[in-house]
Amino acid sequence: MIYSFTNDYSEVAAPQVMQALAALADRQFSGYGCDDVCERARQAIIARLGVPADVHFLIGGTQANAIMIAGMLRPWDAVIAADSGHINVHETGAIEATGHKVQTVPSHDGKVMASDVDDLMAGLMPEHMIHPAALYVSDSTEEGTIYTKAELTALRQCCDRHHLYLYLDGARLGAALMAAPNDLSLADIARLCDAFYIGGTKNGAMFGEAMVIVNDSLKPYFRYLIKQRGALLAKGFALGAQFEALFTDDLFFKLAGHADAMAQRLAQGLKAAGIGFLNDSPTNQVFPLLTADQKGRLEGYGYEEWGRKGDLAIVRLVCSWATPQAAVDGLLARF
Amino acid sequence: MIYSFTNDYSEVAAPQVMQALAALADRQFSGYGCDDVCERARQAIIARLGVPADVHFLIGGTQANAIMIAGMLRPWDAVIAADSGHINVHETGAIEATGHKVQTVPSHDGKVMASDVDDLMAGLMPEHMIHPAALYVSDSTEEGTIYTKAELTALRQCCDRHHLYLYLDGARLGAALMAAPNDLSLADIARLCDAFYIGGTKNGAMFGEAMVIVNDSLKPYFRYLIKQRGALLAKGFALGAQFEALFTDDLFFKLAGHADAMAQRLAQGLKAAGIGFLNDSPTNQVFPLLTADQKGRLEGYGYEEWGRKGDLAIVRLVCSWATPQAAVDGLLARF
Amino acid sequence: MIYSFTNDYSEVAAPQVMQALAALADRQFSGYGCDDVCERARQAIIARLGVPADVHFLIGGTQANAIMIAGMLRPWDAVIAADSGHINVHETGAIEATGHKVQTVPSHDGKVMASDVDDLMAGLMPEHMIHPAALYVSDSTEEGTIYTKAELTALRQCCDRHHLYLYLDGARLGAALMAAPNDLSLADIARLCDAFYIGGTKNGAMFGEAMVIVNDSLKPYFRYLIKQRGALLAKGFALGAQFEALFTDDLFFKLAGHADAMAQRLAQGLKAAGIGFLNDSPTNQVFPLLTADQKGRLEGYGYEEWGRKGDLAIVRLVCSWATPQAAVDGLLARF
Amino acid sequence: MIYSFTNDYSEVAAPQVMQALAALADRQFSGYGCDDVCERARQAIIARLGVPADVHFLIGGTQANAIMIAGMLRPWDAVIAADSGHINVHETGAIEATGHKVQTVPSHDGKVMASDVDDLMAGLMPEHMIHPAALYVSDSTEEGTIYTKAELTALRQCCDRHHLYLYLDGARLGAALMAAPNDLSLADIARLCDAFYIGGTKNGAMFGEAMVIVNDSLKPYFRYLIKQRGALLAKGFALGAQFEALFTDDLFFKLAGHADAMAQRLAQGLKAAGIGFLNDSPTNQVFPLLTADQKGRLEGYGYEEWGRKGDLAIVRLVCSWATPQAAVDGLLARF
Repeated sequence: MIYSFTNDYSEVAAPQVMQALAALADRQFSGYGCDDVCERARQAIIARLGVPADVHFLIGGTQANAIMIAGMLRPWDAVIAADSGHINVHETGAIEATGHKVQTVPSHDGKVMASDVDDLMAGLMPEHMIHPAALYVSDSTEEGTIYTKAELTALRQCCDRHHLYLYLDGARLGAALMAAPNDLSLADIARLCDAFYIGGTKNGAMFGEAMVIVNDSLKPYFRYLIKQRGALLAKGFALGAQFEALFTDDLFFKLAGHADAMAQRLAQGLKAAGIGFLNDSPTNQVFPLLTADQKGRLEGYGYEEWGRKGDLAIVRLVCSWATPQAAVDGLLARF
Repeated sequence: MIYSFTNDYSEVAAPQVMQALAALADRQFSGYGCDDVCERARQAIIARLGVPADVHFLIGGTQANAIMIAGMLRPWDAVIAADSGHINVHETGAIEATGHKVQTVPSHDGKVMASDVDDLMAGLMPEHMIHPAALYVSDSTEEGTIYTKAELTALRQCCDRHHLYLYLDGARLGAALMAAPNDLSLADIARLCDAFYIGGTKNGAMFGEAMVIVNDSLKPYFRYLIKQRGALLAKGFALGAQFEALFTDDLFFKLAGHADAMAQRLAQGLKAAGIGFLNDSPTNQVFPLLTADQKGRLEGYGYEEWGRKGDLAIVRLVCSWATPQAAVDGLLARF
Repeated sequence: MIYSFTNDYSEVAAPQVMQALAALADRQFSGYGCDDVCERARQAIIARLGVPADVHFLIGGTQANAIMIAGMLRPWDAVIAADSGHINVHETGAIEATGHKVQTVPSHDGKVMASDVDDLMAGLMPEHMIHPAALYVSDSTEEGTIYTKAELTALRQCCDRHHLYLYLDGARLGAALMAAPNDLSLADIARLCDAFYIGGTKNGAMFGEAMVIVNDSLKPYFRYLIKQRGALLAKGFALGAQFEALFTDDLFFKLAGHADAMAQRLAQGLKAAGIGFLNDSPTNQVFPLLTADQKGRLEGYGYEEWGRKGDLAIVRLVCSWATPQAAVDGLLARF
Repeated sequence: MIYSFTNDYSEVAAPQVMQALAALADRQFSGYGCDDVCERARQAIIARLGVPADVHFLIGGTQANAIMIAGMLRPWDAVIAADSGHINVHETGAIEATGHKVQTVPSHDGKVMASDVDDLMAGLMPEHMIHPAALYVSDSTEEGTIYTKAELTALRQCCDRHHLYLYLDGARLGAALMAAPNDLSLADIARLCDAFYIGGTKNGAMFGEAMVIVNDSLKPYFRYLIKQRGALLAKGFALGAQFEALFTDDLFFKLAGHADAMAQRLAQGLKAAGIGFLNDSPTNQVFPLLTADQKGRLEGYGYEEWGRKGDLAIVRLVCSWATPQAAVDGLLARF
């Protein structure tokens, strides 16, 4: 294969992350994240938030979503998500396996609109219908789009109206924050959300997601839930080391910026060749609409076929922190 | 601290494992364990089993136990375990969180006796009492002891009598297999058990457990369960690389052999000083019974206080693949 | 209130059912449904099925659905239902509380079309998306419509193609079977479905649903599940007595026939007055589309406002085994 | 059979209860317990409590226990019970099926001692062991014994020390309250417990348990849980009618008093014949210890063999509201 644009977790980890893991040798650590490396990593993250928060290092996104949402809900509660939401489509019913319904609202290019949540809440009937207690959003979304500060603020207000926790899946939060049109900061997100996670796996870590819990009511006993759900890494220091590396010298942001830049270069090149797109994704995932002939030109490159739009294939191309510009330009040379 | 004998997951990973991870750089891989490295690691393990088996790489022991047992049970089923079993005591109700009761039988130095299982099964009343469908054992046990081939064969026969799956938690399977009195091989275990896991986290891996499924009825759809429970590592190749290293040049066995040797050196030295022990553990965990004065001599060393036996403290000392002989001898010099 | 057309469970029970309960006095019975009355009731039902089946008496519909579906599914499985399905909308997430996703397909007047199930199954991706293992349908549906023999046969074939259990919620099965255009018999349903229940609560019983399990693989251990989910009535004979009464002298069918006849009389009268309907429901639920003025004429009658269709209110009017013709004619006199 | 002393739910219902059900004919009611009959029954119960409380009518004991305990616990919480507790032994893992461990303490004649709970709590280790959040007791217990006011007060204080809800399973609460040595009132129980249920099934109702929720934090959304777990009876008025009858003219207490009196007459007679007992149960269950010869004299009477004590069989004899004195005297005539 010339290069795979299939996803952003094809390469093992950024060199700085690998060095941080190598540097753990020849020492003993306390287990389960109760060590100095984790503590430094937590503080590095908290320093950017502007609000007090608990930070827990988890291993992957499905795990992070299922545990945090289970921690937010009582048995009769449901979580609202866009019908395109990762928890609704691509996590094998992980939320339902914790006993809770994922109640969908329509996706607008991967995003949730407050008015849809209002409509849903207005139509519920006590006792016989579920009781939503949380709203799940992702930023960037499954379709590469991002929330504006105005949109996320509107969702926060919507959640306040309906007594919903606002939870943000940040598997690709770096890509969102570094997108050209983005006007949200980590501090904004911490201020607007009750909890969210900062994705490492898809942004240069070997594995790892940093769960940030802002709402005090969600903080107690969360480590019990992590342990019970099989997500408490014995050698937690291996998570701490990765996040310390990512939050040193802005590495997290630089890696995401590179991924975005490569994907946008890809998109610009394809647009220049007259190709249309599913949406205006400004992040590291772009979705060209290709004819069969055009798709044929991708031969040798990895990509995912996302769906169909009329006669055209929706193709997903993803760039990562590791994508070489030469790979992008090589693909563009086919068009 | 001079040295911590608190557990066997205080050090990041064996050098060969770290090198295998480093060697993943500069390549792209398929995600979720569908790559050549994982495939080689799987074959290296299967080659030692003598029976066809599915091998899946998971991240940690609590996760491995909860997923495999959930895969064995229908909603009305329970799993039997020694009252000292890890799933009964130290996993925060992880099995119950999947909807199943852990039905206990008495522990005999950490081990389950077939006659206790027979008695339990004889006393059950249809419908109003749970229906056990699996037996959980660990080897080595939570108390460092091991099963003989005769004992495990008796449990297999007991399970056949009662239509129970036999599942073996091998978090410290290396330590069991390398213990001086051990007469079980990996192939014996594969022949006698329906499923078991080969522990990496506590034997030189940074993280990872290799689940081996022998019983055909348990094989289908297991990857669905892994994904649903948040245990499908995106960069699965990082698990494959570690297990390929562990199963190259008998590294897995050499590491465990070292851990056992160090712990037994510790035990011999303490016995020579007149100290008694909770049991005759032949593995990398030993449990001296110490007076307050003797415990005081451990100052500066890490250990876990396991309980009390009359006036004496039960202390757990654990050695790992990384424990230097000098650390052992240094502690012994205090006695 | 003059009369409530709100539902079909407003009256305590048909006189014959009440007499059967009264006749239980002055005797002792074995508990939990293991008595002669239950056995006679089971045999009366089985006699009409034409196939061997297990029959269990449960207390209510949400309970029946949740238990039977939980018995059909392994942890990674989901159940497919119309988006209008009772389990998807009006059971407070009861299915999800057992750990399983309700995967929706579009409702066609309350019914599922095989082609929609085919499309759904074709679009699934292993491991990352749920694995459907059962199809839920209701007859009559939540919108009063019924399946034809051709439609249910097509769904059976669809389920065979995709290895799905076919489960039919018969909360209002009597109303379906007695509808004028119905061409399905109880024996047809037993032949085509893996399991279904015959609703008593909404057809003259004080409470009770008879679960019929036809597929042998679903029969073992079902009583364990009933007990575990809190649905094993101690005085099970009170369920048996009701179903024995319902299946004596065709009472079950006569009661349902009356309910259908009253509702159809209501519909005919309203149609004669120029009123349109949501659909052509031939059963005991009818859904006129009313202007605000027309709705005003219902004052004093009980009904449910089901939704809106443009400017018109969708009103649900339900008749029961007990609805007097005078109540129907009284309402019609307003139009 | 001459007479069955097997349990206290062999007879359909007290005549007054049957009359109350019959009196529901010829009326329409709102569904799901939102009717005037239920409201009167609730008020009749609340009038005896002396504290504000929510009262919900459920159908059976296993259901009541599972729902209330699920409502008390967060995902990481466990419930403590005596190892002899009904939820631990005879409910088919119903609590575990809701995701929670039943953590046992030793039974003392069926009762929990505060000191055992203190010991348990002192030995827990954060995160790796479950977090108990509720204590389950039953009164009368599974062995017929009862709590004194001093004992229940001590448990309340123990629960306060450890932040545990105190939940009392009152399946046989009538028998406890009417026992000669009892010094607890319904008002005491309401004052000391966070929630408890008043058992109808085993005290003259056809079915039904009245859940009393005293602690305000447990009140919201409980009806959602009832519905979700399949326990919201459509014709809830049939529950209300039964409890209204039971709480009219002290019927509940009179029925229980009769059951106790009959069982104590049985016990006195057997004691007079030199027979020993498992314990000093003062309620409607008594447990004589019988030789094989003595057991043979029970031929023709129903009873349950409860276990063995040395060479003797532990036999359980249960009397109900309906047990005729002649049946008791007939059995005694055999000794």
